[in-house]
Amino acid sequence: MKVLITGGAGFLGQRLLFALLERPSLSGRHETAEPIDEIILLDQVAPPTACADPRVRFVEGDITDGDCIASVLDESTTSVFHLAAVVSGAAEADFDLGMRINLDATRLVLERCRVLGHVPHLVMTSSVASFSSSQSGNVITEDTAPTPMSSYGTQKVIAELLVNDYSRKGFIDGRTLRVPTVSIRPGKPNAAASSFASGIIREPLAGLEAVCPVPADTPMWLMSPRLAIDNLIHGHELAKEVVGFPRTITLPGLSVTAGEMVEALRSVAGEDVANRVRWTPNEMIKRIVLSWPGTIATPRALKLGFQADTDFKSMIRDYRDGLAAPAAPRT
Amino acid sequence: MKVLITGGAGFLGQRLLFALLERPSLSGRHETAEPIDEIILLDQVAPPTACADPRVRFVEGDITDGDCIASVLDESTTSVFHLAAVVSGAAEADFDLGMRINLDATRLVLERCRVLGHVPHLVMTSSVASFSSSQSGNVITEDTAPTPMSSYGTQKVIAELLVNDYSRKGFIDGRTLRVPTVSIRPGKPNAAASSFASGIIREPLAGLEAVCPVPADTPMWLMSPRLAIDNLIHGHELAKEVVGFPRTITLPGLSVTAGEMVEALRSVAGEDVANRVRWTPNEMIKRIVLSWPGTIATPRALKLGFQADTDFKSMIRDYRDGLAAPAAPRT
Repeated sequence: MKVLITGGAGFLGQRLLFALLERPSLSGRHETAEPIDEIILLDQVAPPTACADPRVRFVEGDITDGDCIASVLDESTTSVFHLAAVVSGAAEADFDLGMRINLDATRLVLERCRVLGHVPHLVMTSSVASFSSSQSGNVITEDTAPTPMSSYGTQKVIAELLVNDYSRKGFIDGRTLRVPTVSIRPGKPNAAASSFASGIIREPLAGLEAVCPVPADTPMWLMSPRLAIDNLIHGHELAKEVVGFPRTITLPGLSVTAGEMVEALRSVAGEDVANRVRWTPNEMIKRIVLSWPGTIATPRALKLGFQADTDFKSMIRDYRDGLAAPAAPRT
Repeated sequence: MKVLITGGAGFLGQRLLFALLERPSLSGRHETAEPIDEIILLDQVAPPTACADPRVRFVEGDITDGDCIASVLDESTTSVFHLAAVVSGAAEADFDLGMRINLDATRLVLERCRVLGHVPHLVMTSSVASFSSSQSGNVITEDTAPTPMSSYGTQKVIAELLVNDYSRKGFIDGRTLRVPTVSIRPGKPNAAASSFASGIIREPLAGLEAVCPVPADTPMWLMSPRLAIDNLIHGHELAKEVVGFPRTITLPGLSVTAGEMVEALRSVAGEDVANRVRWTPNEMIKRIVLSWPGTIATPRALKLGFQADTDFKSMIRDYRDGLAAPAAPRT
């Protein structure tokens, strides 16, 4: 079977690649287990480290170009992990860019799957940004109406609806996972409004100062990179009859305030490290992040077997230990 | 001020036109009352009766054509009533047509408003089809997640989200009203799955047989044409600070089963008339209609001053009496 990962050079795309390479099989056509013959990574920039596994091919390309999509998504493509996206801060700053990548490119991917006619699996990532924390007196559940107060959230909910309808029509076998804020990401800050949720741990551990742009009592809905990948693959493997409708699944998460995150850092790495966090409010980031729910009730996702982290200190330790590990499995 | 009505030759478009012509003013720029100087009706077919009022101009055109939209929506357009849509049955039968009209054309209208830069008012109609009756153990509220089980519903929810985000960004001052099934419509059956909700009253009153394609205990969420128009104009007139977010408002309605509708007809028009209804299930229509909620709790809309009908017998009498009235006000 052949797998396409859009945004394959990104953080989640790379982690997903290595997790898939370690698996003996994935559910293919008719949901029977099949070995993976090829994984294509589509992205606009090359991955940080080249992968020597002969099953892996990187394609540098523009996901808003239908010909590019057709070249990597064809009759032999069994599964698509559609991770390519413009993140929240960037989509807010550049409305047209967000619409083009998060909405138009998603439509191109879905239409390509549809014309192929063999009903590929498609797993898409969405986000906690689908919700607005001002809803329902703050008790957000899987049945709460998404009323996003950001263009990113708007575009993601639209894409969720399309994945659902394309699945209902039998054009694809799709599932969208609303992933909590992934923490702790390695590397550099990005344009996501939630970037600090990794930065306030990552930078102090590296001996650098970090800025926390939201108040200490801001609750964050978090998931470790490891569980994000486990859940993406679990979402792929579930039989469609088990998933049912809607095909959008709000993942469980761990609710931690920004202050508790820094206290956990203090407990794991010491006073000096934790003191490298500066509390400097940023109004634009605050407005976006405070519009997200800090906790969500997810009984459906838990029943479907999706998992959440249980404590933030372990997430810090896993991150610290992971830094010593090789970036990619040896091939 | 200048008003554009897309789908202006349609049933609601025509009723809205005549209601607007009778008003001394409408809230214009800066929400101050202004007289209406011009009303443009955009549609693909001419209205059934030409309007002699010099303020009215009909433009036959294709709403999927950006140039056509630009020709009717310009610097002087204060308000847009965006009613053009492919109805539920047609959008289910022709997926591409629904996407083109309900989604792509809506985007063209929104983008045109955006580039003009003067933040026009925009009132769009959406539908009870945004919901799915299988949600939340059938207790649907304004805060229930829309999980449409039709392409029409999907496209409408997407359009709602766009109107909301374009309003939040300050590109337009938009409001979307989720209108219950409008009953009783005059004229002929249409491709809406809900077409029978007018037909089972209209045809028997006209001496014709009518088919009810859903079981007698199917609850319908209804609104009279008169209140639909009143609510559209009310939605236009509300100050944006009063509407707040989300800009999507689920209108109140009257919950009546198909069986109760026919019993009301029996009570108003007699045994012979009511006996002209044949109960012949249609699986495709049943599937779509049963996916809609039969009742919705709408405290927000009621607080905002939107109104619902109180009994179906009055709706039948109003329809019967309206048949004797002229189709358009004399000008």
